[in-house]
Amino acid sequence: MDNSEIEKFRKEAYQIVDLIADYYQNIEKYPVKSIVEPGDVYNRLPEYAPLEGESLTAILEDFNKIVMPGITHWQSPNFYAYFNANSSFPSLLGEFLTAGIGVNVFSWETSPAGTELESRVMEWLRFMTGLPDCFRGVIQDTASTSTLVSLLSAREKYSNFQINKEGFKDNNKFRIYCSKEAHSSIEKDVRIAGFGADNLIKIKLNNDFSINLTDLETKINDDIKNGYHPLAVISAIGTTGTTAIDNIDSIGDICIKYDIWHHVDAAHLGSALLCEENRHWIKGIEKADSFVFNPHKWMFTNFDFSAYYVQNTELLTKTFDILPEYLKIKTQNVINYKDWGIQLGRRFRALKLWFVIRSFGVEGLKKKIRHHIKLAEWIEQQIVENDCMEIMAPRIANLVCFRAIPHKNIGTELINDFNLKFLDKINSSGKAFLTKTKIDGRIIIRMNIGQTYVEEKHIVSTWQIITDSLRELM
Amino acid sequence: MDNSEIEKFRKEAYQIVDLIADYYQNIEKYPVKSIVEPGDVYNRLPEYAPLEGESLTAILEDFNKIVMPGITHWQSPNFYAYFNANSSFPSLLGEFLTAGIGVNVFSWETSPAGTELESRVMEWLRFMTGLPDCFRGVIQDTASTSTLVSLLSAREKYSNFQINKEGFKDNNKFRIYCSKEAHSSIEKDVRIAGFGADNLIKIKLNNDFSINLTDLETKINDDIKNGYHPLAVISAIGTTGTTAIDNIDSIGDICIKYDIWHHVDAAHLGSALLCEENRHWIKGIEKADSFVFNPHKWMFTNFDFSAYYVQNTELLTKTFDILPEYLKIKTQNVINYKDWGIQLGRRFRALKLWFVIRSFGVEGLKKKIRHHIKLAEWIEQQIVENDCMEIMAPRIANLVCFRAIPHKNIGTELINDFNLKFLDKINSSGKAFLTKTKIDGRIIIRMNIGQTYVEEKHIVSTWQIITDSLRELM
Repeated sequence: MDNSEIEKFRKEAYQIVDLIADYYQNIEKYPVKSIVEPGDVYNRLPEYAPLEGESLTAILEDFNKIVMPGITHWQSPNFYAYFNANSSFPSLLGEFLTAGIGVNVFSWETSPAGTELESRVMEWLRFMTGLPDCFRGVIQDTASTSTLVSLLSAREKYSNFQINKEGFKDNNKFRIYCSKEAHSSIEKDVRIAGFGADNLIKIKLNNDFSINLTDLETKINDDIKNGYHPLAVISAIGTTGTTAIDNIDSIGDICIKYDIWHHVDAAHLGSALLCEENRHWIKGIEKADSFVFNPHKWMFTNFDFSAYYVQNTELLTKTFDILPEYLKIKTQNVINYKDWGIQLGRRFRALKLWFVIRSFGVEGLKKKIRHHIKLAEWIEQQIVENDCMEIMAPRIANLVCFRAIPHKNIGTELINDFNLKFLDKINSSGKAFLTKTKIDGRIIIRMNIGQTYVEEKHIVSTWQIITDSLRELM
Repeated sequence: MDNSEIEKFRKEAYQIVDLIADYYQNIEKYPVKSIVEPGDVYNRLPEYAPLEGESLTAILEDFNKIVMPGITHWQSPNFYAYFNANSSFPSLLGEFLTAGIGVNVFSWETSPAGTELESRVMEWLRFMTGLPDCFRGVIQDTASTSTLVSLLSAREKYSNFQINKEGFKDNNKFRIYCSKEAHSSIEKDVRIAGFGADNLIKIKLNNDFSINLTDLETKINDDIKNGYHPLAVISAIGTTGTTAIDNIDSIGDICIKYDIWHHVDAAHLGSALLCEENRHWIKGIEKADSFVFNPHKWMFTNFDFSAYYVQNTELLTKTFDILPEYLKIKTQNVINYKDWGIQLGRRFRALKLWFVIRSFGVEGLKKKIRHHIKLAEWIEQQIVENDCMEIMAPRIANLVCFRAIPHKNIGTELINDFNLKFLDKINSSGKAFLTKTKIDGRIIIRMNIGQTYVEEKHIVSTWQIITDSLRELM
């Protein structure tokens, strides 16, 4: 290869590294949530692509001038919005290398090392999170995809592979069950797989926002009476809204009793299973059929990396395998991960998790997660002690759900309006970004503490912004 | 943030850059196709994750010792296997930056710049490939996913959104049509969407391996007579096996006549539409409903990046949108790309294409593609002039399909056996990696010339290996 091109790359890649390093050095100076208006970025970009090549300098100038102002800083220590989608320096190193060598890990033959490193790190991860040996793992892009893969496996198991072959028939009156607070991707997946959203039955919640078991069993029985086939229950270790934890042990018993597929969605909180004190969340997990969690949420592994575990790999591959002539090879008895999911092409994602686990060590990862939970406890304590705020859902791990109550004896609508203004006030400071949800008609402010490099000082100053904002509004 | 951690990252990221640069400097020294045996990599990796953190030096030592021997070098100029999945230095710079800033582009609010740069580069790309203004683009991960998205849109259009809501009913006897040589992902997508593989009707081929229009229309009419609903035709601009090109203009007419969805899969060859001389391939494209091609195949943009274009974006978003409370925002009239596809979480992929287009310029991209086609023409010419080889499919662009004929008057089976040995011989040289397919019982060797940095010298020396291997075997 042309040496001058390689040397140009070396020099320019150093520049990008510097840009990234400088970005993290200055990240707290930017408003966490971008303040651009719709169209600001689009309209500043030229209408047509350049005909002739441009220099990296020109590109980076536009990046800083046009793109950067439109960035909402997900990696800022003061990002408490939505859910964690964190990264870390070791993960970036692994990601760079993955891009650099650019292999495609769809079958063993196309990438023996990509395949076997994936098998190994997924075994590490299984053991690290306390999942029993009956599970086997595969990397998917997102929990949306993992749950879709799980639902399709269930569909094929209980239709005896008829739907894959012939499509849906009259006797495929399937029903799927999940919490009212389950992630939106579940309804999307139910639609995609052809079940129809009407057949996703939302189960009532207990006071702690977990699935009400009586309601679950009642609805299953009602459906059976009405000629439906209860196909799958999707339970949550940490709903998105409030990180509520379903009783997966008892749900497992119900699923066994009625011969129903059980998928456990631990997308956000799964990483906290590294810490033994949280393992009680997955008591009875050996009864579940599949399990997903996202190291790209809270295990310092940059997006995307979803860890999908399943007991019956034969069922999984029978659901997804297709072998065209141009991919037929001689090597037998190897894993071809293309048959473990939807896409054919697959990036070498195992590399970044390998970098993360080895760089932090299991103990180092646990320490960070416990630190985040401690910080969340501290915020929770401040809110409990504050007369004008209240906790709105049990704090399970690193998410604190709260709201302000400006005055006693005012109605829900007024409280809601006040809290929307309160949230706007906090976010418009530019110093922190929190988001909200709404449950039973009540606006809940969510403060999610899981950014890799968040420290006590950030939490303390954010608390100051919260209380200042409240004082100014009251 | 802790400055010493940032400085450590800066230093270590330079090391990774050097590793990548050195890799490209030495890439031709490795055997293109890895020669490890199954288990070699897995068994050399420790059974359990380390408890304490390790140094980058230790990790990279294992990378070089354990992982590297198991790498099949997709970015080697001598990689002619499967299909292009190329990369380029500008793309790597963009990919590094995407990872570095680590934003999630699922809605406008979560990433205004990510959203608007995506809209802009997809407009650039549309214009660059000659797609008319009636199409709007969105980035998907792979063509597998793009085609699934297309099929789901068709399903919802023609069921009047009933399947999304209620699931399949008796009247949903849908049929989908594609070439016998269409990509395996289509059957997989048909299964996932719940149609059943039996309802994917494979159309006979013309001599050039394109869809036979008479057979297509006959099968559509037969299905209508038998109470089926012809739902979609998926045509190919470049099948995977031989890069055959379907007559999309006439297929478009048939689809309009019978009110059928028409999706055009140009995954591999779409990039060649940058060059005006190839635009006749998409004559009549304005009649198609959707179109996909993969810049990650032949536009020097590292995996993954699939460009999906659709005419009816309202239908698209109506198929996929879901708005849970925790994602509700105030900003109206903006694009939320989560509603344009399957996954919720999305990487900032637009950045790398922006880097590629601006670094090469449109003319630079065209030059590279034309160069690859020229190299393929040269190989084709050598084969035509060689008495012991024959061309097995028309060379459309950068793929040459051929086989050896060791002796006149021997049967197909013997010729097939010989060609499998021939291919093994070429690949075991370690100097080149080609793959095969099988059509109508005949083994076809595929030489796909599209690696970003392939030059004439590589093609000449590979031709030498091919003829040497043949001579030794004969």
